[in-house]
Amino acid sequence: MSYYNFSEENSPVAEDEHYMRLALQEAQKAYDSEEIPIGAIVVCKGRIVGRGHNLTEQLNDVTAHAEMQAFTAASQTLGGKYLKDCTLYVTIEPCVMCAGASYWTQIGRLVYGATEPKRGFTSKNSQLLHPKTELVGGVLATECGALMTRFFANKRG
Amino acid sequence: MSYYNFSEENSPVAEDEHYMRLALQEAQKAYDSEEIPIGAIVVCKGRIVGRGHNLTEQLNDVTAHAEMQAFTAASQTLGGKYLKDCTLYVTIEPCVMCAGASYWTQIGRLVYGATEPKRGFTSKNSQLLHPKTELVGGVLATECGALMTRFFANKRG
Repeated sequence: MSYYNFSEENSPVAEDEHYMRLALQEAQKAYDSEEIPIGAIVVCKGRIVGRGHNLTEQLNDVTAHAEMQAFTAASQTLGGKYLKDCTLYVTIEPCVMCAGASYWTQIGRLVYGATEPKRGFTSKNSQLLHPKTELVGGVLATECGALMTRFFANKRG
Repeated sequence: MSYYNFSEENSPVAEDEHYMRLALQEAQKAYDSEEIPIGAIVVCKGRIVGRGHNLTEQLNDVTAHAEMQAFTAASQTLGGKYLKDCTLYVTIEPCVMCAGASYWTQIGRLVYGATEPKRGFTSKNSQLLHPKTELVGGVLATECGALMTRFFANKRG
């Protein structure tokens, strides 16, 4: 007789939180460079295949969002255009552009931290993702949102 | 007494068609490289500041659409992130990702050739553009669409 040994370490929630903490490390890199602090990683079968953080100021390019960097990096790492077996972890709900990019990648799962009521894609049309993409929101939402709040408070201060 | 000397050369329609022909030249480059033949240019005050054609196969990156290349190139040329005084000419109606990117650029005008009923952004939500972006569709639609039809006919053949 065997038992399923449930532990926090291997639960899906713990796994998502683990990877979201790595996305938060990416967001912190953006913060440290005075970029809007959003970070993303792409995970494929337990392996990190892409990372990215917001680089819009440094690259002088409004399309240089964390998710775009992470998607492009993942495609290069895997040598294939599609990310069907991958999960994107991103600290803030993606915008329309990044949701549209995720459609083309056919990413398997999209997990975000804090919601973005103003620019998040779900406020425009929650059907923008690929029909096979599973969407999960609210993972470490407080930590992810707090970094943004701190950034903008410092900017105003 | 003065008359407004209308001539085809300086009409807004003729100007749009002129630039759309240049976007079609970009699309032809994609066609010649066996990429889905979509081309784009960004024009600012009569000057071409960005060009791009679809490079998804060559770059192994599903986000490498013509519009994304053209936006990034235009920002580099102008040395500013925003494209408020610019017009994007693109041979095919943009997808959600590229419409979302255009939002961030705050582009002044977006002019496309043929409509894209399946993947075009207007089929999802025509409110994805920046509120200040003027949208014009159907410029040289027949020529723009014909290049796509020829490409996919050859692929199937």
